[in-house]
Parts: sequence; C-alpha cells; structure tokens
Amino acid sequence: MRILVSNDDGIESAGILALVEALKEIAEVTVVAPLKEQSAVGHAITMQVPLRVIKYKKNGDFFGYAVDGTPADCVKMGIKNIMKIPPDIVISGINHGSNTAINIIYSGTVSAAREAAIMDIPSIAISVTSHTVTDFRFAAKVAKMIAQEIAGKKLPVGTLLNVNVPDIPENEISGILLTRQGKSKWDDMYEQRQDPYGKDYYWLTGNLVEVDTEMETDHAAIKKNYVSVTPIHFDLTDYKTFDMMKSWKIERLLNGKDN
Amino acid sequence: MRILVSNDDGIESAGILALVEALKEIAEVTVVAPLKEQSAVGHAITMQVPLRVIKYKKNGDFFGYAVDGTPADCVKMGIKNIMKIPPDIVISGINHGSNTAINIIYSGTVSAAREAAIMDIPSIAISVTSHTVTDFRFAAKVAKMIAQEIAGKKLPVGTLLNVNVPDIPENEISGILLTRQGKSKWDDMYEQRQDPYGKDYYWLTGNLVEVDTEMETDHAAIKKNYVSVTPIHFDLTDYKTFDMMKSWKIERLLNGKDN
Repeated sequence: MRILVSNDDGIESAGILALVEALKEIAEVTVVAPLKEQSAVGHAITMQVPLRVIKYKKNGDFFGYAVDGTPADCVKMGIKNIMKIPPDIVISGINHGSNTAINIIYSGTVSAAREAAIMDIPSIAISVTSHTVTDFRFAAKVAKMIAQEIAGKKLPVGTLLNVNVPDIPENEISGILLTRQGKSKWDDMYEQRQDPYGKDYYWLTGNLVEVDTEMETDHAAIKKNYVSVTPIHFDLTDYKTFDMMKSWKIERLLNGKDN
Repeated sequence: MRILVSNDDGIESAGILALVEALKEIAEVTVVAPLKEQSAVGHAITMQVPLRVIKYKKNGDFFGYAVDGTPADCVKMGIKNIMKIPPDIVISGINHGSNTAINIIYSGTVSAAREAAIMDIPSIAISVTSHTVTDFRFAAKVAKMIAQEIAGKKLPVGTLLNVNVPDIPENEISGILLTRQGKSKWDDMYEQRQDPYGKDYYWLTGNLVEVDTEMETDHAAIKKNYVSVTPIHFDLTDYKTFDMMKSWKIERLLNGKDN
C-alpha cells in the first residue's frame, strides 16, 4: 500500500510524525506537508504566487517534502508532481484540535483530504480533540486501522472519512461510531484593541454554541468519548431546497427566448 | 431591506461597484469587502493575526469598509462588528469568473455567502462567466431580482443561492434555471521553472475536464447561455455513504467498554 500524508499544522508538528511512524508499519509513506502552520485556511489553493518544494529532514534523516503553500496545495503537488504513481490513500493529520460540526468548513486538515477525494483518491482526515496533545499513539493506531478498513472495503469515489479521536487514555475510549456532521457552531466576537499608535485592530474570538445532542453527530460522539467517523463529500448541493425551490418557478423571472 | 455586500475580488473591483449601484435601488446597502484580491482562498478565516478595518472611499465618497482579511472575515466583521442590526440578506460578488462545479469548493465569493448562511442569514453568491467582463449591468439586475425573490419567499436557514450569469448580451440569455452543482473538475499540472538563482519553483496550471452535460447542472446551464441558480449548504455529510457504511460495522474495530 502507498500512502501520501499531509496536514495543516505544518511538517514540523508532532502529530504528523506520530502518523507517519504508525503508517510505515503497513505502507510505503510519502510526506508532502506545509512548511508553516496553515490552520483555518479552509480549501485555499495558491495561484497568484508560485510554490517552492523543500526536502525536509528530521533528526538528520529525510522525512518528506515541505511546500510553502496550503494543505490542498500539498496534496495536489504530492499527487501530480512528487509521487510517480498516485497513492492508494491520502491521510491528513494528526491534527491538534478537533474538526467536527462547523469546523469542518474552516479546516485545513479536512481540505487536504477533500482535495484527494476530488482527485478520486480515498482519503482520511484525522484529528485529536485537544490543542495540547502529548500522546498521539492511540490516534495513530486509529488512522492505521481505518486506512486498512478502506483499503479492504470500497469507499465511494469522492468521499472522504473525517475522523476525530478524543484526547483521553485508550482504556477510557467508549468505542467507535459512524456519525454525521453536527450543527454546533461559533458565536463570533471581535475583540477590539488599540496598537501603540492609537489605531484599532480586531482579534476574532467567540464561543462554540453546542447544539448537538444526538450520538449520531460527530460533536456529540467525541463528547461521550467515542472515536467519530463521518463520511463527507464535496457535492454542496442542498437537494432538499432544490426540490422545494421547483415550486418557486424561478424561470418566470427572466423571459428569455426559450421560455 | 438591509443588504450586506462583500466579494473576493476586493473592494476596488468593478463587479462590487455595479452590484452596489443596483442594490441601492431596493435596499440600504453596507459594503464590507477585502482590501486585496482574495480569489481561491476557499473558506479561510483569519485567526493568527488581527484584522484592520479601513473606511474606503470611491471618487471622494464613502463606499464601504475594507478589511485586510478573507471574504469570510469580511462577512463575520460586517455582521458582528460593523452593522448595528444584522442584514436581511448578504450578497457576495459580482465575481469576475464563474463559480460552478468544483470551483465552488475553492471560491472566496461563495465562502462569503456561505459564512452568512452559517450565521443564519439568507445569502447569494453571484458571478459572471468571464474574467474580462466589461458590463456587469445584467448580472447586477439578476442579483437584485433574486434578492427580491428570497426576500419574498423563505430560503431555508443554512442555504445560500449560488448564481452564475453568462457573459453575453442580455438578449442572448436563454433564461434562468434551477441547477445542482456539476462534477466538472480540474486536471491539475504544475509548470516547473527556474529562478535566476537556479532554484526550481512551480506554477499551478491545468485544464477543466468538462463532464457535465445535463442541463440540470450549473456548469452545463451556463454553457447553454442560461443563468444558473444552485441552492447549496454547509452540511458536508455524505448521507448515501453514511447509510452504506452501516454495513461495515466499524464499531467492531475498537472493542471499547460500551461494545
């Protein structure tokens, strides 16, 4: 098995190291990750400036390729330029901090896996629910397990699995659940400050409004100490509204030649 | 009616000016837009650095607020910090270039409208299918028409309308169609060059692989000279795969205490 690994915390992060160590036991691993931290970049891609690729060493040995771009850039670059044969699976992580509910939209970790799904390659995004994780071994074990699962079973083209692992000792884990994206979201605030020259600037802050109670949602599952696995895709069409809007008859708005 | 206008091409662009001029006929308009072009930033938000807000003038008159961040930042800032009362509708555009099929994922224009939808405010993203548009008047008229449509009818909370307008004279427009997101996508390539110091760098290029033929898709509709209107949302769950994966019984993978 050949696995491409990326992340959004950057190639130096502890999470990607733990992931690579675990995956080496089951696959040939290629690392292509951002040179610098890229959290909350969403699905940004770099088009206005060119990209550089740097061979990155860890403890004196070659570890992987660092790209001065976004997570999505890294996956494109890895598949189209660095790997001679496309990987069997792409895994993004291990992220420091959960990516559930609305955070999936903002996540660089998820965007790397989604870029792979767009390129028809099965992929996994994996995150641990704390920004101060000290031990990634259990999450790395979960990544390995799920990589083997999707290698054996067929994940539909265009779908990725978004995996979140509670940051607790393995013996306190309740189990693993198939979930859907929750609806918890941020109540944003901007904290206004003044710089030393008397000019205002604003820091984004806010509180997560937790509305998910059903165990079938990612956010509720991790709260109850379950590993959460959510299949996500990149078809953003709201089919329910699509069907409902047929009754609006918007074609009446423009009396074009075919109407 | 109170409308917040943003975009991803930046506050100086011709597209946002045409949009604001048209919307002023039906609403009180507040502009909060990026200071600089933010194309292909996806749903990035700014958290690592603070934001600045600048009062921006056009031809000597106050035009709106420029934020040195992303489209999503502008919408958050507009709703949470600049407008005293939240707007009735948020409109993002008019974008120079279409946002159909896979481009919806990368689009800053769509992310601004999506940020509004996340904040429970009905929204519209509007784009014209050319990067060298000279006349935005028809697209501005469409934006006004659809704003009035969603003000009258109820757009479900969490849904936005992604509108694409062919860049052709109004009398050549075939009509307006309700569509879903197409599957056309990019076949990426990196063009390798050498800098004057002998080091490699890479430009992202590629070709759009057009696979959409059904008129019910955004990409096919604009090709046939229709204005395309697609309802999109931010629930990324792949429900079909969710149902299919129940048979995988992933809960067997971890024999936690509840299993």
